Amino acid sequence: MVILGLDPGTAATGWGVVSAEGSRLRSVDYGCIRTDAHTPPEERLAVIARALDGLLERFQPDAVAVEEVYVGGNPRTALAVGQARGAALTMAGLRHIAVAEYTVSQIKTAVSGYGRADKRQVQLMVGAVLGLAEPPSPDHAADALAAAICHAGQGPLAQRLRAAGVRG
Amino acid sequence: MVILGLDPGTAATGWGVVSAEGSRLRSVDYGCIRTDAHTPPEERLAVIARALDGLLERFQPDAVAVEEVYVGGNPRTALAVGQARGAALTMAGLRHIAVAEYTVSQIKTAVSGYGRADKRQVQLMVGAVLGLAEPPSPDHAADALAAAICHAGQGPLAQRLRAAGVRG
Repeated sequence: MVILGLDPGTAATGWGVVSAEGSRLRSVDYGCIRTDAHTPPEERLAVIARALDGLLERFQPDAVAVEEVYVGGNPRTALAVGQARGAALTMAGLRHIAVAEYTVSQIKTAVSGYGRADKRQVQLMVGAVLGLAEPPSPDHAADALAAAICHAGQGPLAQRLRAAGVRG
Repeated sequence: MVILGLDPGTAATGWGVVSAEGSRLRSVDYGCIRTDAHTPPEERLAVIARALDGLLERFQPDAVAVEEVYVGGNPRTALAVGQARGAALTMAGLRHIAVAEYTVSQIKTAVSGYGRADKRQVQLMVGAVLGLAEPPSPDHAADALAAAICHAGQGPLAQRLRAAGVRG
């Protein structure tokens, strides 16, 4: 199973591809799509969409995993994050690839065994879980890999729930 | 000039195409893209994206006009609206069509001369401005046409501002 994890944002969208063979997880590739703050929103979203479509074409993931956004506080931030997520989900949907969403706490627990791990701990644990020589950076890419790891772990359970008609 | 007005939403995205020849505005077509609440978000966004791409192909608009979202109150709503807007802006951006955003008050003033007109007044005035036999419905389509009318009215000013280096 190949999983594309995403950490969508208008300025920077982290991505990470993880392959799972049984309980063995491997990092295939990861990176970060950056957009120019001086270009209009629709062009920034198109840059993200084009890059993601290239990743979907290149890695042919079986699933896409994203963090469920914590929308506490600022509705303006929620709108901006929503637009970047919209671009990402659209490109997955257009290729009929299912998107799984996980809470921050689910992802941190899957990666580090602790739901309140900080950014640095997540980076270290993602590197360790995937057997990387160094912790992945930038943190957007590490967060994307963490979402993919979480999906790999929960994959079989989520599939069983789906088979039973429950949307995980 | 052909303008595609949009009122993006995950459940219902209103659209309206207006052509402007000098000061004469004409409704070319309008409608509403609806998605099934029982399908996953990425599939609903893909339905919207595919339909919008079809409209962009069919009507070849010079510009897309959308309402700037009022994000008062609920961040969860802002996130959901943001995702639908993200799908819409992405499809415009992928075709290099500029998206203009207007506040509710700018749109209502352009259509009815009054920034606090209610939904019914907007529908009636949109019908009158475009010389339609009946007010356009549903209201999502009327709102989309209103955004297009607003852009048609502000088009020359916005162009002059852009030429002067000011993003309208």
